[in-house]
Amino acid sequence: MALKGKMVIGQSGGPTAVINQSLVGAVLAARGQENITGILGAHHGIAGIMKEDFIDLTTQSVDDLETLAATPAAGLGSVRLKPGKAECERVFEVFKKNDVRYFFYIGGNDSAETAHIIAEMAKEANYDFCTIHIPKTIDNDLRVTDHCPGYASAAKFVALAFMGDDRDNAALAGIKINVVMGRDAGFLTAASALARQDEGDGPHLIYVPERTFDVAQFQSDVKAAMAKYGRCVVAVSEGITNADGQPVMTSGERDSHGNLQLSGSGALGDFLSGKVKEAYAGETVRVRADTFGYLQRSFPSIVSEVDAREARMVGKHAVEHAVATAEPGSVAIRRLSSSPYASECFITPLSTVAREATELKDEYINEAGNDVTQAWVDYAAPLVGDLPKMGKLF
Amino acid sequence: MALKGKMVIGQSGGPTAVINQSLVGAVLAARGQENITGILGAHHGIAGIMKEDFIDLTTQSVDDLETLAATPAAGLGSVRLKPGKAECERVFEVFKKNDVRYFFYIGGNDSAETAHIIAEMAKEANYDFCTIHIPKTIDNDLRVTDHCPGYASAAKFVALAFMGDDRDNAALAGIKINVVMGRDAGFLTAASALARQDEGDGPHLIYVPERTFDVAQFQSDVKAAMAKYGRCVVAVSEGITNADGQPVMTSGERDSHGNLQLSGSGALGDFLSGKVKEAYAGETVRVRADTFGYLQRSFPSIVSEVDAREARMVGKHAVEHAVATAEPGSVAIRRLSSSPYASECFITPLSTVAREATELKDEYINEAGNDVTQAWVDYAAPLVGDLPKMGKLF
Repeated sequence: MALKGKMVIGQSGGPTAVINQSLVGAVLAARGQENITGILGAHHGIAGIMKEDFIDLTTQSVDDLETLAATPAAGLGSVRLKPGKAECERVFEVFKKNDVRYFFYIGGNDSAETAHIIAEMAKEANYDFCTIHIPKTIDNDLRVTDHCPGYASAAKFVALAFMGDDRDNAALAGIKINVVMGRDAGFLTAASALARQDEGDGPHLIYVPERTFDVAQFQSDVKAAMAKYGRCVVAVSEGITNADGQPVMTSGERDSHGNLQLSGSGALGDFLSGKVKEAYAGETVRVRADTFGYLQRSFPSIVSEVDAREARMVGKHAVEHAVATAEPGSVAIRRLSSSPYASECFITPLSTVAREATELKDEYINEAGNDVTQAWVDYAAPLVGDLPKMGKLF
Repeated sequence: MALKGKMVIGQSGGPTAVINQSLVGAVLAARGQENITGILGAHHGIAGIMKEDFIDLTTQSVDDLETLAATPAAGLGSVRLKPGKAECERVFEVFKKNDVRYFFYIGGNDSAETAHIIAEMAKEANYDFCTIHIPKTIDNDLRVTDHCPGYASAAKFVALAFMGDDRDNAALAGIKINVVMGRDAGFLTAASALARQDEGDGPHLIYVPERTFDVAQFQSDVKAAMAKYGRCVVAVSEGITNADGQPVMTSGERDSHGNLQLSGSGALGDFLSGKVKEAYAGETVRVRADTFGYLQRSFPSIVSEVDAREARMVGKHAVEHAVATAEPGSVAIRRLSSSPYASECFITPLSTVAREATELKDEYINEAGNDVTQAWVDYAAPLVGDLPKMGKLF
């Protein structure tokens, strides 16, 4: 069945370095489709749709779109809103009113859930309509897909940051703690392991939210690394939790989803610095903590080539699939080979991606819970791509 | 007068992205000089010299040196040590014992001071000797020189970070505070202005240590920016001080120089976030703070081309000047033209660079003390070089 009508495309959740590649991939694919009679960009996602606040995406030059594709963050504006039934009804009403027949929502599992609810509403109302979720998240925590567009570029930033910071730490020895984004999944923190090129390179310890964080064990791990290397670089996820399941340290504030604010605060890093100083009470030791913060997801020019290509690909695939089949779904990526790296798109039902997220597999975390495994490196390295060689004299 | 003997080269103070360019520039220049009979790298600067802990720099392949040149931090290891008279005497003793006739010290004003003291000792002792200070600092606070190697690459990192973060802030509107390195001088924080490409782009407010920071004025500035732009990105130096001259917020710890620790802690960002929330008491407003931390000075692949070229040039010039004249001094950079950018090296007496530092000129700071001027942008932009164009839909 071929649908004819307008399309709406929106972006949701945290920005990434390549989310605009997906937008531009979808828009350029749509411009060639005669069944798509208008291309409306939702200004700030669902929030914009409810207000009928659209940006016409038929008028920009290809050059301008290519500049946008290479720009981080979310060109249409994003939103942190998990819409309830009333909001979804309003969205559906706007779609019907404007003869919108296609809806593409670029985001994570919450966005897939929104797409799913709206797809179900259309079905119930017998409104001919196709909703496609286009995956995006630096957290890499969507189910089904091998990995998520947006992740590899953020992972490249993290790997580069640790490569440089490890050299910095080698030049002025001490203990350095770097807090990496990741509330429930340690994919981004685990990418710090890609910084290692030679024996003794940091990070020397990696803590992910998939394992309970024990302060005493951490203190003892740091002391052991210091004894072995004379210095210590630590990667830690912002979302690490105590044995009771509570975040180790937050700013105390909650976001609009009711989640405790983890990013945009140096609280965890400063807390862990304090714990290390405690462990070295009386001794002089240089302890510093950095929280990478929002730089990880929106730094211009730090982009994985694989990520940029795949982000473009999922946007294009979404439109082509929708026009060809009118079947709702979520675009996912299948890895065909790691060396040389190759992948392809496929469609998975919205229900398989919506709502629940995934996390690091057990085989990617070492037994002590303070590092990753070679299996992890084999998984992540092809996504991030080549990294510069660090020169060393000692 | 031609001196014949060994040379020692060392790196001191905070690492930069291009300090190894200066090292490699000096080493390659020295390898061609028959009056230089040995090239000794001081492992961790002055601290290594006192222990006669040297790395032989005659054996590495040119390829390996080029890899090192492109690697951030300090390949020889660095040190934070302002040596007293006894330490300088020990250094001088080691130099005499090893027939060292040339000493090249890559660092900031403290390193120039060390070089100066040792040069004076040699003169008093009638020991034929030449000391050259090779400038390096991301702070850009050395006197005489137009600018300092290491600065422009860190400035490029800051500009890129603000470009991306401004897009992130446009996508999910709110108040974002970014804390940038700079204890006494605002050069690096001021570089955030280079992120602006279009009307309304952030940073919307810039605070440097050259002006007293007033919390109430800051709160009122943020509110005014929010009213005008619907969002607000703030750049603030870690070293901003209150009217009493004390840092606005620190971790409370002091470093080996007795300076309060400013970097490697999220304390200032979190404090300013709190002050903004106070100003909006009762209202819902999204406030986040990131502290860029050590990433600014050691991020691989974010390098200004001008900076890399000049860092190489000052290292080479130091050796050529020393061999040709045996006159001590500090290498400085003279800007010949901003468009197209051109520069040359010259030698200035060590006393003109040692000890005291410089700061942002008045003409670079706006009257309200919350932004920089066009004169600043004209000064800084040619050093940082081309930045990617950010694509926008609104």
